[in-house]
Amino acid sequence: MTRQLHLNLFIHGKGHHEAAWRHPSASPRALTDIAYYRELAQAAEAAAFDSIFFADHVTLGEEIGHAAKGGLEPITTLAALAGATSRIGLIATASTSFTEPYNLARQFASLDHISGGRIGWNVVTTWVGAAAGNYGQDALAPHAERYARAEDFLDAVTKLWDSWDDAAVLEDRAAGRYADPALIRRIDHQGPYYRVTGPLNVPRGPQGRPVLVQAGSSATGKRFAARHAEAVFTAHLEQATARDFAAELKGLAASFGRDPAGLLVLPGISPVIGSTEAEAQRLWRELNDLTDAGVGLSRLSARFGGHDFSHLPLDRPLTPEDFPDPAKVQAAQSRAQVIVGLVARERPTLLQLLHGLAGARGHFTLAGTPEQVAAVIEDWFRAGAADGFNLMPPILPQQFSVFVEQVVPLLRRRGLFRTEYGGRTLRGHYGLARPANHIFAAPAPVRALA
Amino acid sequence: MTRQLHLNLFIHGKGHHEAAWRHPSASPRALTDIAYYRELAQAAEAAAFDSIFFADHVTLGEEIGHAAKGGLEPITTLAALAGATSRIGLIATASTSFTEPYNLARQFASLDHISGGRIGWNVVTTWVGAAAGNYGQDALAPHAERYARAEDFLDAVTKLWDSWDDAAVLEDRAAGRYADPALIRRIDHQGPYYRVTGPLNVPRGPQGRPVLVQAGSSATGKRFAARHAEAVFTAHLEQATARDFAAELKGLAASFGRDPAGLLVLPGISPVIGSTEAEAQRLWRELNDLTDAGVGLSRLSARFGGHDFSHLPLDRPLTPEDFPDPAKVQAAQSRAQVIVGLVARERPTLLQLLHGLAGARGHFTLAGTPEQVAAVIEDWFRAGAADGFNLMPPILPQQFSVFVEQVVPLLRRRGLFRTEYGGRTLRGHYGLARPANHIFAAPAPVRALA
Repeated sequence: MTRQLHLNLFIHGKGHHEAAWRHPSASPRALTDIAYYRELAQAAEAAAFDSIFFADHVTLGEEIGHAAKGGLEPITTLAALAGATSRIGLIATASTSFTEPYNLARQFASLDHISGGRIGWNVVTTWVGAAAGNYGQDALAPHAERYARAEDFLDAVTKLWDSWDDAAVLEDRAAGRYADPALIRRIDHQGPYYRVTGPLNVPRGPQGRPVLVQAGSSATGKRFAARHAEAVFTAHLEQATARDFAAELKGLAASFGRDPAGLLVLPGISPVIGSTEAEAQRLWRELNDLTDAGVGLSRLSARFGGHDFSHLPLDRPLTPEDFPDPAKVQAAQSRAQVIVGLVARERPTLLQLLHGLAGARGHFTLAGTPEQVAAVIEDWFRAGAADGFNLMPPILPQQFSVFVEQVVPLLRRRGLFRTEYGGRTLRGHYGLARPANHIFAAPAPVRALA
Repeated sequence: MTRQLHLNLFIHGKGHHEAAWRHPSASPRALTDIAYYRELAQAAEAAAFDSIFFADHVTLGEEIGHAAKGGLEPITTLAALAGATSRIGLIATASTSFTEPYNLARQFASLDHISGGRIGWNVVTTWVGAAAGNYGQDALAPHAERYARAEDFLDAVTKLWDSWDDAAVLEDRAAGRYADPALIRRIDHQGPYYRVTGPLNVPRGPQGRPVLVQAGSSATGKRFAARHAEAVFTAHLEQATARDFAAELKGLAASFGRDPAGLLVLPGISPVIGSTEAEAQRLWRELNDLTDAGVGLSRLSARFGGHDFSHLPLDRPLTPEDFPDPAKVQAAQSRAQVIVGLVARERPTLLQLLHGLAGARGHFTLAGTPEQVAAVIEDWFRAGAADGFNLMPPILPQQFSVFVEQVVPLLRRRGLFRTEYGGRTLRGHYGLARPANHIFAAPAPVRALA
């Protein structure tokens, strides 16, 4: 069989374009209405997508007056969607900076059981500074410390998931043996940031562990992803940088002793699709005409750690000198680098930059026909720039419906994408092995639970 | 209309009797199988129960070899059950000692939206000492400090739920106004334990706030419940103490300026039901014969902060002197008091005490016919000892089915219990008002979100 493309539907607001909520074709449902998400999940499942995905910020942010924000929390949303679907993978973002390893390990293990093995965790360290204040902190920890904490957090969580052997539960009614205590162990984790005794109070899930997803693309983020991630969401505006990124990440993974095939690279893509190129361009202009410069400026500022761009004229070509050094930004460094790179290359005006970012927040956007979109997808895929895509429809559900109805059949005709599911777990869809249990695979005896 | 009884189904393991999982009539489903909980929730909804409820411990505990433990996490479970039901209330326990107010407020607000206004939060401070080790702590904070923290936690959470006015979301596409920023405010909470800026990133839920449930019955716990709780789960072995408790709690609530009708007292009841009294007694003996003394001793020890009872003979009548002073126990003081009171009154042997506690962990148990059970329920209800009951079937689902099929019709014939739902929210079922928004009800102008 030809190498197969993986497709993830990234569900965000009423669509990924900043002004999507104002467009007549956006969903009339409230962002707090579970039916909105259920319909999207079911449509993605009907199209045999690998997975759906929710990003997350643990703060509301500042531009609520003119931006569609304030919806449901991802973990509770995925639990609700698990019952409304039966095959599609379900990926939720959760931060390692503002929760406890025991709580997160529990909720994701529980989700894996509830969904029958369809859960993934997008591991983030949180880059939005305003989040700190919701947790009694004056500021985020510096970038490097956030990642050091994430390493420790992930280590503890992984041990908790492995604290039950798969065969621990006996339910031997006659003998009165509910579980074998020798197959459930304390973890006694003592890391630089976290101490956790364990064991978890949830048995090991169908997938062993949820699929680990990551999106950090800074130097530190890439090392973290190469060590731990099984799928990586990433933002690239050009095929060449995506290809270099994928090659670098897979090389790094190999250098850590991992099989690079166990790490899928899924760049974001936000296609504005029309039946003709002109129609697609018209829709793209319609959306940009609906944007609010204040929202764009506030988001750009957040990307650069609070730097103020509001004194710059909207119509003068920008230069990299208009921006702080991305390497010193204590937010999401790689995204800041992508933006400054774009400015150096294309010298857009501030308004043009804001429109470019309005499409999908720095992810790859394009406007074209279904054939053009399918061709770009195939091209990136065959060039090794992508194992699949994190699809970010500019308007939901309308532009997702167009993708399913008009682009997916083209991908299938090219033999690139499944017509039906082969398995029932997210690991199955992504072609990932069920991880061995690190605690119970250990040959040396470990102290059993008292 | 006659004053109506409220019924909550407390779902626990394979039933509340410690040995339920060994009984032939217990569910064959795994405790990690969401279908098990779904079937129970749907059966309770078909019987027009007010609500279902999950307790929670953030630790596995020690007796896993011989006790049915390690299931799903309550918040994810309720989210999944919300989609499988449409009317019944859904109550999850969550601790104020081991999570962040922002995370808890978010998940419960999200659940309230997902369920269409059917969520309740059972506020606990966690009394099981072993939990501390899962969160990097050497021991639980002392009883009084746990409650002081809970006050601060609840204050922050309540403000977060009130940080959006009900009318904040506009979705005015034409004008580009998604929300009115003047109707969404920072909370800038600065308490002794928590600092939270807010606002929440979830709009106010259908119920305004989830129903607040509480189960602490120590002096401190009662004051906390009287100030905040809208429903109280409580353990009483005698109608007289339940009546005194209800009167005291409602009096305290009145002294805090609350309407006592806004606080429901729901004692636990665990009826072993047989078609004859002899059959009920036989089932009760069958269950006790399946218990494991080691499990009982370990649970008794946990109730008394780790005190060791294993040196006592199983067949010698106990005296209160065999126990530590309940007032000094840093666990759940009221439950320890109930146990020592029972010992003083009845002088059971250790084995008899363990059997008594095996039924429902110190809650009221009785064995009898459907008529006898209905009579006790009516008697307590009419005497003012209960506004309804927290039903704890000894075996699930079998003893719950018997209750629904044989006791509920008797309660209906007596005009005590609804035949169908009148409303769609948990507040509606419990007869509770939707709480006013404390932030936006304030007459003085408060600083709007920038």
